[in-house]
Amino acid sequence: MNDSEKEVKDGLFAIGGKNIAFQKNFIGLSYHNSLVKDPDINVTVSNVSFEPSCRNNWHIHHNGYQILLVTGGEGWYQEWGKPAQKLHPGDVIVTHDGVKHWHGATKDSWMSHIAITAGTPEWLEPVSDEEYGQLN
Amino acid sequence: MNDSEKEVKDGLFAIGGKNIAFQKNFIGLSYHNSLVKDPDINVTVSNVSFEPSCRNNWHIHHNGYQILLVTGGEGWYQEWGKPAQKLHPGDVIVTHDGVKHWHGATKDSWMSHIAITAGTPEWLEPVSDEEYGQLN
Repeated sequence: MNDSEKEVKDGLFAIGGKNIAFQKNFIGLSYHNSLVKDPDINVTVSNVSFEPSCRNNWHIHHNGYQILLVTGGEGWYQEWGKPAQKLHPGDVIVTHDGVKHWHGATKDSWMSHIAITAGTPEWLEPVSDEEYGQLN
Repeated sequence: MNDSEKEVKDGLFAIGGKNIAFQKNFIGLSYHNSLVKDPDINVTVSNVSFEPSCRNNWHIHHNGYQILLVTGGEGWYQEWGKPAQKLHPGDVIVTHDGVKHWHGATKDSWMSHIAITAGTPEWLEPVSDEEYGQLN
């Protein structure tokens, strides 16, 4: 187990199970632990962990937003038309309503973040191996 | 520096400054680091840290809610009319709209949590030394 895998798997919040429900919207394997899902609360809170090279497809949060609190490893966040931004523990990302974006691990590192999410997601095309492979 | 102080001060998210703005609603010293405060996002996200014996006054979130993600040390959470609940890293607390509650550190430990907050707070009476002193 490399250091980032240990950091992610031994994080404050349990890693949860394999993220089967969202598998079709990801490349690679991710894990999901639902921390808050409550009909009276207008956000969900989840601990999401990505194995190396795992990333989600481009997506948009409609009538909502997403906040990422990076808790372990090293990853990427990118908004459409902008350069990808490297993520480290302690980083905070706010994705506004309607903004097309993706997030995931780096090639060689696991990455985990808390996701605070409102609204309805629209899932779009994958981040191709070519696009992803150019990041460094 | 005891272990809980180190855990809280060396946490993933910077401890921030002394929580002067809210001092009148707390007993003891707390620290506040604003992670998200954005006019287009209907929650705020803050890293809040309490020195030993520090706690906030009883309060209510109106037309909103609060989610606590405990990240370090040991603390207390109590809703009006219920027993206090001991908090440890990895614990998740949801306070619903209108529920009177308080949170803070234990007598001998620092405590830190991420607070995700919506709505308007109403600040009420302090948690007296007598009430607080009975917790163990």
